[in-house]
Amino acid sequence: MTQLGSDPQRTQRTPSAERRLGVLISGRGSNLQALIDAIADGRLAARIAIVISNRAAAPGLERARAALIETLVLDHKAYGSRDEYDRTLARELQARGVALVCLAGFMRLVGIPLLEAFPDRIVNIHPSLLPSFPGLDAQRQAIEHGVKVSGATVHLVTGELDGGPIVMQAAVPVEDGDTPETLAARILVQEHRIYPEAVAFLLTGAWRIDGRRCVPCEPVQERRAKGESQALG
Amino acid sequence: MTQLGSDPQRTQRTPSAERRLGVLISGRGSNLQALIDAIADGRLAARIAIVISNRAAAPGLERARAALIETLVLDHKAYGSRDEYDRTLARELQARGVALVCLAGFMRLVGIPLLEAFPDRIVNIHPSLLPSFPGLDAQRQAIEHGVKVSGATVHLVTGELDGGPIVMQAAVPVEDGDTPETLAARILVQEHRIYPEAVAFLLTGAWRIDGRRCVPCEPVQERRAKGESQALG
Repeated sequence: MTQLGSDPQRTQRTPSAERRLGVLISGRGSNLQALIDAIADGRLAARIAIVISNRAAAPGLERARAALIETLVLDHKAYGSRDEYDRTLARELQARGVALVCLAGFMRLVGIPLLEAFPDRIVNIHPSLLPSFPGLDAQRQAIEHGVKVSGATVHLVTGELDGGPIVMQAAVPVEDGDTPETLAARILVQEHRIYPEAVAFLLTGAWRIDGRRCVPCEPVQERRAKGESQALG
Repeated sequence: MTQLGSDPQRTQRTPSAERRLGVLISGRGSNLQALIDAIADGRLAARIAIVISNRAAAPGLERARAALIETLVLDHKAYGSRDEYDRTLARELQARGVALVCLAGFMRLVGIPLLEAFPDRIVNIHPSLLPSFPGLDAQRQAIEHGVKVSGATVHLVTGELDGGPIVMQAAVPVEDGDTPETLAARILVQEHRIYPEAVAFLLTGAWRIDGRRCVPCEPVQERRAKGESQALG
């Protein structure tokens, strides 16, 4: 540590704690794979410090192992209360210096202890254009409601189910013959595209929450230009 | 009439009662203009039989007069009850043989007497991707909610505000710097595109309501092909 610290050039190049992700899964982890691929491609400057699953049989764990990422199974059924489980999750993530927690098909509600450990630092992807169709089976909800456009939403996680500030969205058409499965497949393509992009955006830190909107901060240059023109005006 | 009736060829060419529209407005009527333009261009095989406004000062009335369309002002304040007003609307529309009633910025809730006179034959356009942001000021609702995608929805009118079966939708991006006005302008371009298209689709009659979905009927050929393959299988 002292050696690294004595060389500022090198310290900067070391993966920053700010760029460490923790990914929570329950199943196949296709969005975990999208993050792994985006990191490998250089589209996402980050490192996945740990993948945690609440199910030992989650196929996504194998994807993590194949990418040489540390994995951990924390079976919620082994904990006395939801809070105890959430405190354990928080402790394990914090121990790895995680800056952003990415839910990728994690089928558990996130409780207060985890939300408080990572305020505005837990992100989720949902297969609808929120606020339409929150909750389970969003694609089936969309088809049964008869919408002609649906999509995917990346949002920050709050205490309200699928109700946090929206970071990014992408739309897809709903075709007349769609089943929940064909619509899910079409949406998944967009999920895999926007999730890494949204995570990269969040890791820049150049955003703020305004009301319930997630908005980019103005670049310093723009702000300065505006200030100058106001001063001149 | 007898002369026309005696020449079946010519009778067919006469604008069919099935293709007569009634348009209800309260304001500028830009979607009325989109329908007028689509008819003039040949994109919409229909005739607007009458434009009715509940406000004498609606600028849209001038658009109708310029296109030589009959106009009628029915001021809701002159009627003792909502039902009485709606019955008058229904009577005037039926007197013109209207097959489909198009709301174009008509700022009145449609009540039972009108709904019963034109079951599944009243259509509206709304500036959001329903079921998100029904009601007034949809563009402001979208911006305040922080969505990154919004759009326009053409839907059949039922007793539920902006809640009827969806006929067509189009998505637009919400930009970071958007105001309700800039977003409204972007959505309006899509409104003007999809409203005539959706009206043309409804006038074909080749659709049905399934649950709360508006779905095209399968072409006879397709149905026959399926039946044959089932018979063979």
